[in-house]
Amino acid sequence: MKYRWLADNLLQIVYGDSRFDSLSINKMENRENIGSEYELSTVNDLLRVKKGRITLVQDIDFVAEEDKTKLIRKMPLNVVVYGFGDKTGPLNRIQRKYIFFNTDDILHTETKDPLYKSLPFFIFFNDRFTYGIFVDHPGYIEIDLDSKATGRYEILVRDSGFTQYIILGNNIKEVVKNFLKLFGENYVPPIWAFGHQQSRYSYETEKELFNIAYKYRKKQIPCDVLYLDIDYMDSYKVFTWNKENFPKPHRMTEKLHEIGFKLSAIIDPGIKVEEDYEIYEEGKTKGFFIKDSNGKDFEGAVWPGRVNFPDFLREDVRKWWGNKYRKLVEDGIDGFWNDMNEPSIFATDNFLKLVKEAIKELNLEDGILIPKLLSDYSDSFKKAELISEEPVHTTDSNKKVPHSKIKNIYGYMMSKACFEGLKSNFPNKRFLLLSRSAYIGSHKYTGVWTGDNHSWWNHLHQEISRICNLSICGFFYSGFDVGGFSENTTPELLVRFYQLGSFIPLFRNHSNKGTINQEPWVFGKRYEKIIKKTIENRYSLIPYIYSNYMLGILNNEPFIRPLSFDFQKDPKTWNIDDQFMFGTSIMVAPVTKMGMRERAVYFPESSWLDLNNYEIVSKGWKVVKAPLETIPYFQKVDTAIIRMEPMNYIFEKEIELLTFEIFLDKGFEFYYYEDDGITYDFKNDKYSLRKIQVSRDKIKITTLKNSYKSTVKFWNFVIKYIDGVSKEIRVDISASQEPIEIFLP
Amino acid sequence: MKYRWLADNLLQIVYGDSRFDSLSINKMENRENIGSEYELSTVNDLLRVKKGRITLVQDIDFVAEEDKTKLIRKMPLNVVVYGFGDKTGPLNRIQRKYIFFNTDDILHTETKDPLYKSLPFFIFFNDRFTYGIFVDHPGYIEIDLDSKATGRYEILVRDSGFTQYIILGNNIKEVVKNFLKLFGENYVPPIWAFGHQQSRYSYETEKELFNIAYKYRKKQIPCDVLYLDIDYMDSYKVFTWNKENFPKPHRMTEKLHEIGFKLSAIIDPGIKVEEDYEIYEEGKTKGFFIKDSNGKDFEGAVWPGRVNFPDFLREDVRKWWGNKYRKLVEDGIDGFWNDMNEPSIFATDNFLKLVKEAIKELNLEDGILIPKLLSDYSDSFKKAELISEEPVHTTDSNKKVPHSKIKNIYGYMMSKACFEGLKSNFPNKRFLLLSRSAYIGSHKYTGVWTGDNHSWWNHLHQEISRICNLSICGFFYSGFDVGGFSENTTPELLVRFYQLGSFIPLFRNHSNKGTINQEPWVFGKRYEKIIKKTIENRYSLIPYIYSNYMLGILNNEPFIRPLSFDFQKDPKTWNIDDQFMFGTSIMVAPVTKMGMRERAVYFPESSWLDLNNYEIVSKGWKVVKAPLETIPYFQKVDTAIIRMEPMNYIFEKEIELLTFEIFLDKGFEFYYYEDDGITYDFKNDKYSLRKIQVSRDKIKITTLKNSYKSTVKFWNFVIKYIDGVSKEIRVDISASQEPIEIFLP
Repeated sequence: MKYRWLADNLLQIVYGDSRFDSLSINKMENRENIGSEYELSTVNDLLRVKKGRITLVQDIDFVAEEDKTKLIRKMPLNVVVYGFGDKTGPLNRIQRKYIFFNTDDILHTETKDPLYKSLPFFIFFNDRFTYGIFVDHPGYIEIDLDSKATGRYEILVRDSGFTQYIILGNNIKEVVKNFLKLFGENYVPPIWAFGHQQSRYSYETEKELFNIAYKYRKKQIPCDVLYLDIDYMDSYKVFTWNKENFPKPHRMTEKLHEIGFKLSAIIDPGIKVEEDYEIYEEGKTKGFFIKDSNGKDFEGAVWPGRVNFPDFLREDVRKWWGNKYRKLVEDGIDGFWNDMNEPSIFATDNFLKLVKEAIKELNLEDGILIPKLLSDYSDSFKKAELISEEPVHTTDSNKKVPHSKIKNIYGYMMSKACFEGLKSNFPNKRFLLLSRSAYIGSHKYTGVWTGDNHSWWNHLHQEISRICNLSICGFFYSGFDVGGFSENTTPELLVRFYQLGSFIPLFRNHSNKGTINQEPWVFGKRYEKIIKKTIENRYSLIPYIYSNYMLGILNNEPFIRPLSFDFQKDPKTWNIDDQFMFGTSIMVAPVTKMGMRERAVYFPESSWLDLNNYEIVSKGWKVVKAPLETIPYFQKVDTAIIRMEPMNYIFEKEIELLTFEIFLDKGFEFYYYEDDGITYDFKNDKYSLRKIQVSRDKIKITTLKNSYKSTVKFWNFVIKYIDGVSKEIRVDISASQEPIEIFLP
Repeated sequence: MKYRWLADNLLQIVYGDSRFDSLSINKMENRENIGSEYELSTVNDLLRVKKGRITLVQDIDFVAEEDKTKLIRKMPLNVVVYGFGDKTGPLNRIQRKYIFFNTDDILHTETKDPLYKSLPFFIFFNDRFTYGIFVDHPGYIEIDLDSKATGRYEILVRDSGFTQYIILGNNIKEVVKNFLKLFGENYVPPIWAFGHQQSRYSYETEKELFNIAYKYRKKQIPCDVLYLDIDYMDSYKVFTWNKENFPKPHRMTEKLHEIGFKLSAIIDPGIKVEEDYEIYEEGKTKGFFIKDSNGKDFEGAVWPGRVNFPDFLREDVRKWWGNKYRKLVEDGIDGFWNDMNEPSIFATDNFLKLVKEAIKELNLEDGILIPKLLSDYSDSFKKAELISEEPVHTTDSNKKVPHSKIKNIYGYMMSKACFEGLKSNFPNKRFLLLSRSAYIGSHKYTGVWTGDNHSWWNHLHQEISRICNLSICGFFYSGFDVGGFSENTTPELLVRFYQLGSFIPLFRNHSNKGTINQEPWVFGKRYEKIIKKTIENRYSLIPYIYSNYMLGILNNEPFIRPLSFDFQKDPKTWNIDDQFMFGTSIMVAPVTKMGMRERAVYFPESSWLDLNNYEIVSKGWKVVKAPLETIPYFQKVDTAIIRMEPMNYIFEKEIELLTFEIFLDKGFEFYYYEDDGITYDFKNDKYSLRKIQVSRDKIKITTLKNSYKSTVKFWNFVIKYIDGVSKEIRVDISASQEPIEIFLP
């Protein structure tokens, strides 16, 4: 065991023979090695990291073998644990065992594990300390957070060792910030990615897509992005078009752009084995595919049937692949969702052989064995484990690595290939990028969604914790399928899904083939009207969202945050899994239960303004009304919310007026950020940043940076004082002298 | 379509050619035909049932074909719907489609359908009316309660017609009572069935069973019943013992009885095909098995491998089967759980042939077809549909009926066989009887449990609605697997499961093979102590439970009830799915979320006494403390709770003292019922019934029936007045003159 301080809040520990870690995977440029390296005398030495007088980390046992490494530690007393991204289950991760081994599974039950992503970063906290642990290993990991109340937690990897980071900080916010410093800049979506998005597996023809697009415009329900699911391709061949259903992609995207729609296309890693199919022939000729144990191109079954898989571990393969997106961008595609990149493999020849053999001899005397075998072979995780033994990767240093040893970074490497390919081809253009699979650090390259959820009330509820824990792991741009992907959604559920979704960065309606359509209008006028109002409210908040999201990017602070991110001193916030912060000013308390028309909300420290009825609420529990038309959301005292007039899509009209809604007690200051929303010019300081200082009788606006020229001419301040008084004042922001001082009469 | 009034609150409607209905199935002796029969001129005639000026039932369309009958009705506006027993999903059944086709499925997701039971009875209610509908059909049914917001609900059966009952009443309570009048007396369990029960699949040897038993007694954790799961049998042969592991059943049960344990044994309908196995040989010789389409005994695979199934539709078969329980009772068995009686069939030869054929030719080119086929064939419902086409029943009138046409009453008929067999062999002995499968009316013969749940928080929550909706359908004795059956339970989850379970009639801990043990002590002292206290509190409430449960039996009123059963006038109660009434005096508000230490509780009309801290709470929402040690529960004002000293098992000690906890405002009256708890003597009036009238300054006790001699000598009244004053007074109930009048000083 070796350990060294990489910074004064960042300890690296290497257990056993750790073959892959973020140093090699992530090329963490921002890391600084300021510590020395210590070799401990025995693996059983207790490692104590002192923080004040608290012993944070106490090893009990450590065993490293050729193919298995196990570390047992003392479980801190009375801790709450956040992390692990969008794994299902409670917000607080204690008392359960988690498995990390990227797997495509369509049934997200409360304990379904593993799922698409491996994000083995977690934070322990209680009233005495906070610290984070990142188990940095790209293969199979188990983390058991004291599921049997033995007072221990266990980390097991299927390898000869692993690297670990202990991240210190005074609170969750600091630990997340210190953790994220490891990685460099977070993925930045274009501003229209904060608009409403409509998807379905699949809008199968250009005509169907236009029908949806025109219907949105006709009904004046705001929408910015449409999606192409796998049926846009010719026989599911990646980077092709089905020319029958989408005869002229460029003309189509142009027409969609004209009416304000962006278009995102799905990309799968599996490349159909088909002679004369360009990508296949290239990959095959160049030897870019993952091999099987005989050195031949590894074959699996995915949508197109028999496919090969690019070996994304290699830089040359990533470069090749990354350049492939160029053509689609030239066709007018504005975003990509990299799907099936766990990778999801339906079968291999070996797997099929195994299944056939096993089933061939079955007869009734086998009793329970019959359903057990069938369900075992249809179990995603068991299949992923079986199949992962076959493929072999080649690293840049020409080493052979079995897929099972690095499975968790395959999707990561695909996201990296996509991001870097687009960056090199279109250096100053932001794309809407999503990935289903991810590893820690993927957030540099892509946003994520939580995969194939169900049209269930308990999934609606579950998505809150999943998004909060994605934030903790560095994924600021994330979301879930509004309405639910699998099974038929229902009218009231769709409304409540929309309400929650309207407070999530990625706000996308998506549903599965074979389910009923779930666009906002399908359940008739009553529901359509509510959903439209919900989406319009989202659009009104775009200036607030974008400014705060971007400030979060600059400060390594997620936009969506569990309550304790902002109110950690109040233990009552620690386990609340049905409320969350939407930026620093807004707390959201969605209704996630059928039929409920009110709900209890916990208000942490300070006063809050109910944004549905403008009543003032003070600290503690309160039951608030939540008719079907309403999602409860609240403004924290001494904060601002910035709104614009809703429009059909983000750049439909020039914004001349912003409304700053101030809920005021003692006074405060905040920042307002703007940029062009679509390029990386902000990295060259082309943005506008204003500091707004609000006191009870004065507002002072100071421009800190003004190299982006906003279209906004007027700021309308609507001030609600905590004693109930309201004031309104309009400022000509373009004409005024600096600093602007407004005296409140 | 024919309709007739069977009573002034009960309308029967026969649609198309209805072949089976409760008249033939249930022999509803209490039914009285007081109406005339009307033939309507066309099937599209609108049927209007007037209740005051409200049109309750309005047919829109009706189509009957050879094998499909569909009825479309206008959906009442703004209704809430209860019913359908333990189907999963929200308490309120609107906006979803339900399928009734008894199926064994181990994954009870929010929309999993169908499950084990078919209970197609539901109640519509709103602020203007309440009525019930019973779709009385033993084959496949779909009921779509306006899942697409079209303003219609649809009933579809896979047959040429069906019978329907419309049950009127002024509120839910009346509708349930009127509905239950159709069936005669509810199943009555022995009093010890209200004790705590410990099960596991499986305690595999006598030794293991005794270890559990002695551990309970040593730790003084109350427990009344132990269970034998399938491993007690010899090769899963029903009505046999595994003589190696259970060499002397009679000696074993005697020893268990000595230390106060009852023993319940599992019974499966499938009979192993094995020469010289007595039951098999008998059934075969007598021709008692279900046939296949060639007239041979139908074979399926269940636990024992190849099995035949008794044709429970025949009275002679039921009689034969019912007598088989006798031997086990003579061995000392006190209860039976009839399991796998949907019936669950793992496979048939035809099914296996189909699977093998389908899989044989698969190759990677088939893409998504591969996982789809595997998951289709491992899908319980699809398998149940496939397999149900094969078997053929013979009715008492010697008609041949395909299994698929009457599937939903197979388990019902098994319960009937069991109950009637025991009744004829042991006419005056009550047994603890459970069934997994059921149809409407099964409640006459058996209690039920909700089948194989998971160790999930959302299942803990879900069980509340399931039990409430079982009550609505007539099942008063019901419960769920405390701790969760599938997957490993966790410490905090087990505690919360125990707390909820302690307020459910069937209070049984049960878990699956391959999961960790989940007896109360497995997670160490801290959790054991809390669970022990929880169980002790349950035992203290036995007099309250038993008296109220039995009064419910006599009055057709379920013991467990959704809030709106008692507070229907308050619409806020209608959708509350995490609180319920435990008898008429107690409201329970369990914690069903990980980590939560307080929760919001809705208090309907009147005042309530918090039974954890004896604070008085008034109408409305309130947040109450719920540390891990505590389940919030509350006493309604002007009610009584009756407690005894907890003991290790129900008859351990003679009860000399009862404590009547009175929470008093204006005054009220209530009844206290006692009988021997184990025989049917109460039917011959051998019970004691006292009326207790409580006013602010006086308690008056009148004995209405005293033909059962209670051991109780003293009643201790502990009175808490609504203004906070407390009084306590002890009454010698055995010696006093009648009526007893106690003046409160």
